[in-house]
Amino acid sequence: MADLPEPTIERLLQLTRVLDNCGAAVVTSAEIETRTGWSSHTIRKDISYLDGDFSTGSGYDVAALGSAVRSALGLDIKRKCCVVGLGRLGSAYLNFPAFADEGFELVAGFDSSVNRVEILRSPVPLYPAFKMGEVIVRFGIEMALLCVPAASAQAAADRLAAAGIKGIVNFAPIALELPPGISVRNVYVVDELRAISARIPIRKKENP
Amino acid sequence: MADLPEPTIERLLQLTRVLDNCGAAVVTSAEIETRTGWSSHTIRKDISYLDGDFSTGSGYDVAALGSAVRSALGLDIKRKCCVVGLGRLGSAYLNFPAFADEGFELVAGFDSSVNRVEILRSPVPLYPAFKMGEVIVRFGIEMALLCVPAASAQAAADRLAAAGIKGIVNFAPIALELPPGISVRNVYVVDELRAISARIPIRKKENP
Repeated sequence: MADLPEPTIERLLQLTRVLDNCGAAVVTSAEIETRTGWSSHTIRKDISYLDGDFSTGSGYDVAALGSAVRSALGLDIKRKCCVVGLGRLGSAYLNFPAFADEGFELVAGFDSSVNRVEILRSPVPLYPAFKMGEVIVRFGIEMALLCVPAASAQAAADRLAAAGIKGIVNFAPIALELPPGISVRNVYVVDELRAISARIPIRKKENP
Repeated sequence: MADLPEPTIERLLQLTRVLDNCGAAVVTSAEIETRTGWSSHTIRKDISYLDGDFSTGSGYDVAALGSAVRSALGLDIKRKCCVVGLGRLGSAYLNFPAFADEGFELVAGFDSSVNRVEILRSPVPLYPAFKMGEVIVRFGIEMALLCVPAASAQAAADRLAAAGIKGIVNFAPIALELPPGISVRNVYVVDELRAISARIPIRKKENP
């Protein structure tokens, strides 16, 4: 839903997980506040954007609220995805069962090595990278997991953009430059390690 | 450095990447503003926390500023890491060359299957999960990549916490509950796909 404020989108995305894991049929905004740190006021405001009736006398109906959030965010729409770059990480994601459980349909994998495409065993069809544009258009693929090395990532992203991709999960440690309208989410595990590192108190040397 | 404000830590972490990729010897705060969207005022304030002399007549010395940021964040300290859970994703990270390049030393992998530990080929030593506490203490491992299924993640995190781990990169799609002082960074690719999904404008059905 393009007209939700950006912070509301982020919170509603997290709210779906909170509701999935809350293990109760009814939840109050105070309980959501305890689990998330958002103020009850913010929670009620975010929820006011949603269509539907999910209030009960004692709180929100978890199933109905979850379904309203999913609908507002378009998460009830099945989206087709592909993996670009079939090294170790890309190959791991080819075999990731959670995609289907969550409404994402992995329909293709691409690699620049024709040899790798031919020998790799995969539950989804694999194609050489030069067929990327054609295959993405043919199947209506909307999202890509970009698992190529940093040096190839921008070129691969350009080809994805030219093929009409809507969003990219970028695992390469570079900032992609893409036309407006294409969402990029960067996932780089070294950055996560650095973020942890920066929060470990610096110890004094034992033998100065 | 424990006494930097949290948003400053986040921005300085991003700044290291901006400096790595800026391709020049000197950079101005206006150029950093263009690349990041942070105001020059914010940038100068963040940089004022750093020790060292990195101002030139025409901007910041990129190498000296980068080194001051790394030092303030403790990124110049080599940290030992382990991988917990050696399925496809965990195995992929066992073989990830970027850890060493970035100052992280991967020293152990753990899996609950003794059989898997014995047959998996790996550049780092592998251990059965029941040795986790002992090995983490013996090597001084500070960080873990938690790559186990969701159902096992909290139990594995509890064992990591008991062994004195400082931070966890959590790939399981659940919110871990951990004692204060342990940093957690959640990485879950399905959440990234959902975040992209939520930003794709909802199309009208062609045949309503």
